[in-house]
Parts: sequence; structure tokens; C-alpha cells
Amino acid sequence: MLLKSNENQLKSILKSDNVLTSLEERYCYAQDSTNTRKKSPLPEAVVFVETIEDVQKVLKLANRCKIPVVSRGAGTNMVGACTPTKGGIILNFSKMNKILDFNPENMTVRVQPGVILGDLKKFVEDRGLFYPPDPSNMRVSTVGGSIAQSSGGPMSFKYGTTKDYVLNLTVVLADGTLMKLGAGTIKDAVGYHLNQLIIGSEGTLAVVVEAELKLIPKPEASRVIMAYFDTMEAAVDGVNKILADKIFPATIDFMDNNSITTVEKFYPCNLNTDKEAMLLIMIDGFESSMDDQEGRVYKAMQEAGASDIVIAITEEEKDSVWTARRASFAATAKLAPDVVSDDIIVPRDKLAKMVKECKNICDKYSLPVCMVGHVGDGNIHPQIALNLEDDVQFKNYIKAKSEMYELAVSLGGTISAEHGVGAEKISYIEDTVDKEAINYMRSIKKVFDPNNILNPGKIFKI
Amino acid sequence: MLLKSNENQLKSILKSDNVLTSLEERYCYAQDSTNTRKKSPLPEAVVFVETIEDVQKVLKLANRCKIPVVSRGAGTNMVGACTPTKGGIILNFSKMNKILDFNPENMTVRVQPGVILGDLKKFVEDRGLFYPPDPSNMRVSTVGGSIAQSSGGPMSFKYGTTKDYVLNLTVVLADGTLMKLGAGTIKDAVGYHLNQLIIGSEGTLAVVVEAELKLIPKPEASRVIMAYFDTMEAAVDGVNKILADKIFPATIDFMDNNSITTVEKFYPCNLNTDKEAMLLIMIDGFESSMDDQEGRVYKAMQEAGASDIVIAITEEEKDSVWTARRASFAATAKLAPDVVSDDIIVPRDKLAKMVKECKNICDKYSLPVCMVGHVGDGNIHPQIALNLEDDVQFKNYIKAKSEMYELAVSLGGTISAEHGVGAEKISYIEDTVDKEAINYMRSIKKVFDPNNILNPGKIFKI
Repeated sequence: MLLKSNENQLKSILKSDNVLTSLEERYCYAQDSTNTRKKSPLPEAVVFVETIEDVQKVLKLANRCKIPVVSRGAGTNMVGACTPTKGGIILNFSKMNKILDFNPENMTVRVQPGVILGDLKKFVEDRGLFYPPDPSNMRVSTVGGSIAQSSGGPMSFKYGTTKDYVLNLTVVLADGTLMKLGAGTIKDAVGYHLNQLIIGSEGTLAVVVEAELKLIPKPEASRVIMAYFDTMEAAVDGVNKILADKIFPATIDFMDNNSITTVEKFYPCNLNTDKEAMLLIMIDGFESSMDDQEGRVYKAMQEAGASDIVIAITEEEKDSVWTARRASFAATAKLAPDVVSDDIIVPRDKLAKMVKECKNICDKYSLPVCMVGHVGDGNIHPQIALNLEDDVQFKNYIKAKSEMYELAVSLGGTISAEHGVGAEKISYIEDTVDKEAINYMRSIKKVFDPNNILNPGKIFKI
Repeated sequence: MLLKSNENQLKSILKSDNVLTSLEERYCYAQDSTNTRKKSPLPEAVVFVETIEDVQKVLKLANRCKIPVVSRGAGTNMVGACTPTKGGIILNFSKMNKILDFNPENMTVRVQPGVILGDLKKFVEDRGLFYPPDPSNMRVSTVGGSIAQSSGGPMSFKYGTTKDYVLNLTVVLADGTLMKLGAGTIKDAVGYHLNQLIIGSEGTLAVVVEAELKLIPKPEASRVIMAYFDTMEAAVDGVNKILADKIFPATIDFMDNNSITTVEKFYPCNLNTDKEAMLLIMIDGFESSMDDQEGRVYKAMQEAGASDIVIAITEEEKDSVWTARRASFAATAKLAPDVVSDDIIVPRDKLAKMVKECKNICDKYSLPVCMVGHVGDGNIHPQIALNLEDDVQFKNYIKAKSEMYELAVSLGGTISAEHGVGAEKISYIEDTVDKEAINYMRSIKKVFDPNNILNPGKIFKI
């Protein structure tokens, strides 16, 4: 509980206009991008931090007075990871948004957590380098948020996720102490990988205040191949044929028939609505390999029974074939007052089955679902359109969700590939992760945050 | 302390010929591949485990009776990570050496820890897939050891290290409990990355009994370019030029003049002994990109002032240019009774300085040093030839080592890139890693292993 005296303390340790406490302001920070019926309690204060020292001072106070602290970047999270569950303080990083150091020779960049991911990506790409993590919210979302949630994106299959690009972190601990984790080098075999423990811990173990990231040379060329299939199985078969031919595409995204028809309905772009599945395959690498790669992907698509194969080479062409995929969330959102984009993952040989079963489950509960995702990873984003305020629909949605999660786990998959657990999936983790492992997570949480002030009520129950 | 009664218990829970207690047998397991003057105390028993249950039973007994347990694969470790510091039991995994499951569609393989890394690599490569970690001892070393030490190898620069290829682990905890960590999928954002905490923890937190690994499509072609330079700076400049041209070589190894001349002395293979540095660059990818990549690397090498550029295309040619690099350890070993291969890393823009200074330090202490390493990573392996039994040489070596480590850290690097800390570097970790971070490592160790039975005396002091 934040007392009036705490509020005054916050205003004395930070610039007073960095402390927001009006009802309207607090209201804005009780939500993030999660579509949920759950209402988070309002935070009691929202503080904008500008320096590491600011973060240390706030945490020192919070820890002493046992006030919950929820770190927040751009609030694009979809599992309620950055909304309060017990009031407390929102630590807003949007003013700590600087690129602190860029070293092209070492191919590293040091940033504050509030840097917009898309800005960082553009900054390094303009300089011939590449930071691969590409969650679809990257034009707004922050580096800090992507570290907290261990974010991925379409390119994860080839290039990995955020955890593969963090060299070192500077974090503030629950009691305000500063700690440096990891080394300034590409490899590091000295002691436990504590930085890997922080990545994906959703702000529950420590607060990241600086990160040094690894960059790689930017692939000089890319092309996109779009192809339609009569069945999801045929699409997956096409992907297997490509991989068996030693092609490693940067992206292998899919849209199911519902996604295709929904996009075509609201944003017509000449999609083939008769087909069950569409693949969007981005190959990248050397210009000298493009014709070869393209020809081999084309052949594999044909052998798998694809039709209407489109090859996009220029930036305009590529942009045009991606439009459909990008429009799928907005199109689905037109079907009902709300749309929930979920995030489940199964081994690739179970993807076609999972897509079909998710459709069956949603049909059973009369919920329109548009499925998109990343075939390489086996990652599916079912986008369910509904009215969250409608009790029947809401109950059906909860049932459908549970059944989809149960199925994913039974197929060797899991309930979150790149969105995290947050508050939304907390009640499902016990059925997903080894109970012993959750107990160890709890013990580690206790080591880092004995007063449970850091983003309480997230990931697992204490 | 292992009592006679414990020995009998071990013999009753395992097949009796899986428990070795004779002096000669115990003597063999008091050492690994570390060249050190330190003598490890003999283990009191060496047990060969054949099943997960065997491991559980041994740990249950060991934990109850507070007997140290040191897991061991092939003993190729170079920092004393798998030798006992307090007697106890050696847990030998050489009989748990099966590939349990290979799924070409999901591009995953599930293995026991005793599988030889080179065998695993060949197994998947024969099937068109690729497991990149390639420590130079891979023909003997085991997967379990590479997980314990978070091993890398020449290909780490492009392809990452062991930690980037572990999807999930099955581990036995100190008290014998089984725990599964991670998911069966390529991405996983559910809870803390406990598997990343186990990787590189050198058997001090839990014992890995099974691992599922991620594979990638095998690059279909590769070529090796060898080039000589007048200075290490020019060699690094050549590397920077390649990377700036968006070439991402699989391997960028170097040899310094001492390495070149020492190899040429003992294993003549027409090396140019007049030059200060030699680069070995392996490019890989599509056959269709090979001429292009090779031409661009050649041009960059020329622009950086290289001479005697050799291009190796056939397997025989590639093998022949790698011979020199492979022979460097054996050649250095001919200079003195012992050779210690160290492992330090700095940001790439400090590599030339570090190589030069290491040479100066070793010269100051009259220690012959041959330096090889991986330029991309900034990883240097100084191979120091000496007689460990000679007190003066030994004292000089200890001084030189400390100075090299201190320098690496002062240049933003660290004291181990891929070998680990083990018992050999334990006294240097406090000057390398944030003290607060070491305290958190200690607390985590306590959570996992309250009785300190798992590989005690390694990484950091308790």
C-alpha cells in the first residue's frame, strides 16, 4: 500500500513531474494490450525514471515499505505482464530510451530499456548490421519489454529470440542494489548464466536498466514466396521439403483459410479464399544465392501441391505480399467487439493437427478463430473474435482456451512461445511445467525478491 | 567421506562391476585433461551409471551421507571441472551414451549425456542436419560435458554455443529427485529459463541425465581461405572488412607467428614463417554463393594487405589448410614437458592488443607462448609451454596467467570463453564477475544443493 508519505517521498526523490498520481493517469496504467475481462487494480503511482539512480531510489523505498513495483515499457504485452495485480508503483521506462553506445567493429550496441525495438533495428540496419528479434509490435514495443518477455517474432526460427542476443545486463535488485550480469564479449563461460535467468522473468526477479546486445551482419538480400495449399498438412509438407533441401528460411509464416477469407473480406488484396492454408516464406542471404534458393523453394512448393505461387523480389512486392499477414489481426478484430490473440507452440510435426484441432475446439464453442503463425517453430497464434462482456461467449472462450492449452501440452508443446505467462496464463502453468521446476522458480524468486515486491502475481503463484 | 558401508551400498544399488574402488582405478579419475601442478585427492569410488534410476539412487545415498559427487564424461575438461576436490564419488556417464530419439521433421535429437559429441555430429550430418557446437576435443568429449561447460568451438561466432541448442534437460537434483526443464519446442516463454541456469554450471547445481537438442539444416557448401598478414592488426582489419561486406563466416581462426613457426618446425607443411599472423576463414552456405563469397573475402584480404592467400575448395584441400591449426597444440607440446592451453576473450576491437600484450607478458617471464584462437569472438587460446615441475617456471607461469586475466578483464573481456572456471580459475572469478552476482550464484547453489555435494570446490568459493 502506497501511503501519502510514500507519495511525498517519491516526489522528493524524483522530479515531481515524473510522479503521476491522478485518477485518470493511474487508470491508463491499469491496462496493457491484453484483451481480458479481468480488471487490474489501479496502480497508486506511475513514476517515470530517467536514470539508474532513479530506479535504485524507487526500489529502495518500495522494498522498505513493501510496495509492489511493476516495470513497464510501451505496454504492448498481451498476457497482462505489465499491469498491477496489487496496486503499487508503475516504473515507466519511456524516458530511459537512449542508445548509449554503438560499436560497429565489435558488432554490439548498449541501450537503455525504453528504446523502441523498431528504432533500434532501424538504427543498426542503417549501419549494415542486424538485430533479428522482430515481435510484430516492434514499432511501439521496447527493448526492456522484449527482454522481460523473452520475445521472438517471425524470424526466431532461423535467428533465435531475444535471449540469444543479450550479452550482458545491468539490473537493479529488489533492494535497490545495482548488479552487472554477463560479459562484454560474445562468449562467456564464467559462472552461472544469471542474465539468462533474468531474460523472460517478466520483471519478477530484478529490473533491467541497461543491456548490451549482440548484432550480426545484415543479410544483403531477401525474397518472399507466397503459396497456397489445399490442406495444412500439405503446407507443412512443403516446409519439410524446403528444410530437407538445406534451405533455412528466415521466416515461414502461415495463414489458415479463416484468416485468408477474413482479411479478404475487410481488406481485399486478391487472396485465394478457396484454399485451406497459405505460406509466406522469406529466404535471405547473398544476392548470388537468391535465384537458386527461390527456384528450390518454388520446386518444393510445387511438389507439395501448392498453387498460385507468387514471388516477391522488390521491396514493394514484398510489402504487398506481407500486407495480408499484417492485416489479419485488424481484420479478425472486425468480426466482434474483442479479439484475443493467443500464443501456443507444438513440435512442427504436430502443427497441422494442432491447427485443425484448435479450429474444431473453437467451432464447438461457436467462436470465430483466425489462425496465423510461424510454421518453422510450430508456433500458432489463434486469434479469437468474441464479445468479452457476453457471459456465454466468455465462458466458452475460457473453455476453448483450456482445451487448446491442454492439447498443446499433450502434443509435446507449451502454452506460450513468445508472449510470456503474465497474469493471464498463471493458472495454467502448473499443468504445463514440471511442478518441481516451479518450486525451484519459487525458491529463486525468494532469493531475488524476498518481499515479493517485483511484479507480484505473475508467472506462478507464490 | 565414503565409508565401507557406503561402498557396500553402492555395490548393492548398482551392478557390482559398475563400482570401482581399487587404488589404480581411483587414481585414473583424479585427473582430467587439465595441465596443472595441483594434485586432486583421489575419488573414493568411481561408479558407472547405466540408467536415470542409477543416478537417482547414487545421489540419494550421497546426499543423505553428504558424499561429494563429481559427474564426468570423457574427462577432456581443461580447468579441472571434473576432478574431485574432496574425494567422494565420480559419476561416470560413459555407459549412458545412447541417441534416444531422432526426429528429422522437428529437427531435434534426444540424447544421453555420455554420447560422444563427434558421433552425434556425424549422426545428424549423415542425415542432412547440423549440430554446430564444435569444441576441438569433440572426437572424445561428451554432450554432457559440453552442457556442463557451455562449450563453444570455432563455429560459435556464427552459430552460437551449446546453450543455444539445448531445448530441454532432464536433470537429477542433489536429493535424487528427477526434474524436467524447458519444453519440447524451439521457443518457450513459460517461466524462468532454468535450463539455461544448469548449462555451464559445471555439475554444481544438478546432474544432467538427458537432453533434447535443436538441429538446423546443414549448410550445403563451404570453403576455407588462408591468408598471412604482417601484423595482427592487419588480420583483424581484414576480418572487419569481411563483416562490413555482410559476409558472416562460420569460422575465423588465427595463428600467431610463434604458432606458425612452431608447427612448421615439428610438422612441416609449407607455412610462411615470416608473417606475424595467419587467418583461416571458413565461409559456408549455398553452393551458388560460394564464388561470390570467396571473391569478396579474397578482395578484403588483399585490401588488408594479406599475402600468400590460399583457397581450399575440395575436402582434401580444406583438410590440408586446417592441418596447421590442428597441429598447433601438439607442436607447442614439443617445446617443453607440459603445455597449458588457456582460454581468454576480449571484444574484437581489443584482440590485436590482447595478443600482443599476452606475448609481452609471456616474454617477460621467459615462457614460450603460441597463440591461436577465434578472431570473430575475440577468443584467444594462449598455449604456454613449460615444465610445471620447475619451481621458477611454475611461479612465472602463475604470474603471467594472473597478468593476462587482469588485462583481459581491463579490456572488457573475461577469463573464460568456452572452457569454464572449474577448480583452476576459481581464485580469479572474484576479480572478474560482479561480487553481487557471485553472491546470487552462491544463493542459487544453496537452493539446489544445500549440502554442497555436487562438484564442490568449483566455479566459486562457497
